[in-house]
Amino acid sequence: MTSEQIHKGLDGVVIDESELSRVFGGEGRLIFRGYDIEDIAANGDFEETLYLMWYGELPTEAEYEAFADALAAQREVPDEILDLLENLAAVDQHPMDVLQASVAALAGYDDNVDVDPESNLDGVVGMGQSITAKLATITAAYNRLREGEEPVAPREDLSHAANFLYMLHGEEPEQAHVDAMDTALQIHMEHGTNASTFTTRVISSTLANPYEAVAGGIGALAGPLHGGANQDVLNMLEEIEASEKDVGEWIDDRLDEGGVVYGYGHRVYDVKDPRAYILQEHAETLIGEDGGDDKWYKLAREVASHMDSLGLEKKGIAPNVDFFSGTVYKQMDIPTDVYTNLFTMSRIGGWIGHIIEQYEDNRIIRPRARYVGDVDLEWTAMDER
Amino acid sequence: MTSEQIHKGLDGVVIDESELSRVFGGEGRLIFRGYDIEDIAANGDFEETLYLMWYGELPTEAEYEAFADALAAQREVPDEILDLLENLAAVDQHPMDVLQASVAALAGYDDNVDVDPESNLDGVVGMGQSITAKLATITAAYNRLREGEEPVAPREDLSHAANFLYMLHGEEPEQAHVDAMDTALQIHMEHGTNASTFTTRVISSTLANPYEAVAGGIGALAGPLHGGANQDVLNMLEEIEASEKDVGEWIDDRLDEGGVVYGYGHRVYDVKDPRAYILQEHAETLIGEDGGDDKWYKLAREVASHMDSLGLEKKGIAPNVDFFSGTVYKQMDIPTDVYTNLFTMSRIGGWIGHIIEQYEDNRIIRPRARYVGDVDLEWTAMDER
Repeated sequence: MTSEQIHKGLDGVVIDESELSRVFGGEGRLIFRGYDIEDIAANGDFEETLYLMWYGELPTEAEYEAFADALAAQREVPDEILDLLENLAAVDQHPMDVLQASVAALAGYDDNVDVDPESNLDGVVGMGQSITAKLATITAAYNRLREGEEPVAPREDLSHAANFLYMLHGEEPEQAHVDAMDTALQIHMEHGTNASTFTTRVISSTLANPYEAVAGGIGALAGPLHGGANQDVLNMLEEIEASEKDVGEWIDDRLDEGGVVYGYGHRVYDVKDPRAYILQEHAETLIGEDGGDDKWYKLAREVASHMDSLGLEKKGIAPNVDFFSGTVYKQMDIPTDVYTNLFTMSRIGGWIGHIIEQYEDNRIIRPRARYVGDVDLEWTAMDER
Repeated sequence: MTSEQIHKGLDGVVIDESELSRVFGGEGRLIFRGYDIEDIAANGDFEETLYLMWYGELPTEAEYEAFADALAAQREVPDEILDLLENLAAVDQHPMDVLQASVAALAGYDDNVDVDPESNLDGVVGMGQSITAKLATITAAYNRLREGEEPVAPREDLSHAANFLYMLHGEEPEQAHVDAMDTALQIHMEHGTNASTFTTRVISSTLANPYEAVAGGIGALAGPLHGGANQDVLNMLEEIEASEKDVGEWIDDRLDEGGVVYGYGHRVYDVKDPRAYILQEHAETLIGEDGGDDKWYKLAREVASHMDSLGLEKKGIAPNVDFFSGTVYKQMDIPTDVYTNLFTMSRIGGWIGHIIEQYEDNRIIRPRARYVGDVDLEWTAMDER
């Protein structure tokens, strides 16, 4: 390997150290800041996981309360941003592009954007709290506006997950829904330097502010190769239903044709993705709960059962987090094209964590490209071309 | 060098091939698509350089006309975006954050966002034209709005550079101003995979659309380590003036103290940056022209003359493009905090070129980070912490 080798996609290239998360692919294990994702999901909540991600340790009760309160206090968005959402609803803008535009616009409303990010962790965390809180408000308000309903103002007395479902649906959610949403927001929070997270690191390496960096990350996550996998799963489930075939037959046919079963297998897990099983437990508790549609989860369970019977897990073909996330969101009555926003509302925790790491020991990120074009061309006048 | 080496900043790491530009640092030479920047500046204009960048060859007269007309036809922005600018002017949002929010919001107004970017070059170029045209309109309109003036509607009969100055100042510009702006927009267009350009490549590697990718690039360029160098030069010139010292004395003191002279030296040019001299020629023609302030250029010229007498060019300490760009913009009566927008209005050509290259032979960009945090931590209950 010489320095002139081309690292397309940067596969395997190590860009920095990080203390945020690690995947042990062979064991199907994911840790955040040293804690197993199962422990985090079972014992903590979204707010606590955010604190862990940004400050590097679990909060005391007083620290937790202060952090959660500060987050809740940041939920309201300026009227001008709501006007923007209304305008964008009129042209049916994609919910992710709405988030991107809104986050960029919000920079003007936060005095913290003027702090020196390399020496003011509290200012950066303050911006992180503001963005995190408002991603939920914007997602809920935009969804209501495009459905012709008025946005619902946030409530400070609810948890982040509960308040989001309340703003989205306009009524206080059942506890099982809150628990499922809270867990979904925890387990998607961080997963190394994937394209969107890396984008936030590249942008913040110029000492751009977190709003500018997060807006970039949202753009990357909006790309169909990155954030849309759980929508592929749902499309597949719809195809299975429409085929009127038996589930097992549909899968066998699919595999015989060399096709893939969406939501199975993962680039970095050789066995199960631990997040899939955590989500599935919540999906089970949501069966029969009011509001959502559990048809899709039940169908997904049938797919999983047949896949299980084929013994593919030994080959690393096990369900990943995307397999059950879409069907859980269906159980909470959330429209499919909002799923990547939910991903963003969670991944913001990892993004801000990486942005903090970048500011703390920064070097601007600027690689090279090998020029393979022409040299020494002579200009010809336009009328001689 | 093993695959486990940390490539912080990705210094020297080659991420892909590119046919867009090459710097020959030892010769002080820059080419776009095989043509020397001096030839491009002397013979082409902004529209022609854009065409060259995106299509890889110089246009025939018919191609040029069609391309320039299509660009001009895209100048108007929707009323809703003007509303956004007005709202952001009320909170004095930084002009770069205004651009970032606006570009993200504009995605909803362009039907091309639904094309398959890997197979539809015309659709991608169409989005590139729309973004390029509107960056100028937004920059001019926002600057007027925050100064309490009404935006000036674009005119299709003017060139891109002339129309921008017209929209900014509300009157048809002198030809010398148009020529200087046109040249500034050409020569800043492309310079390899710096942080902002690389950002657009990372984002578009997820097959995100060009609006989403460019919004990210704007975020990176807004960072003070990236796009703000010509503002540092102006601040330095103001310091020199305020010091009431002789220019030579000020510089000698600065260098004796181990300080840097902003706008001198460049990471990739060992000798002169060819763009500096191209700009300086325009600065000379602007002396005595109406409207702008040429005090700063004259002071810069004095600095250059003293630096020259020190013989530092042999050591690679020669003026770079940032040294004269700020003072030229002052000669065109453009506020200092808009300079990075001008950079964006030019660099969009390179960004769209790189986005096209990424789509044409894509692999998603996702490097790795080395985990150096804790492992195997046990969860403790909150009241035991």
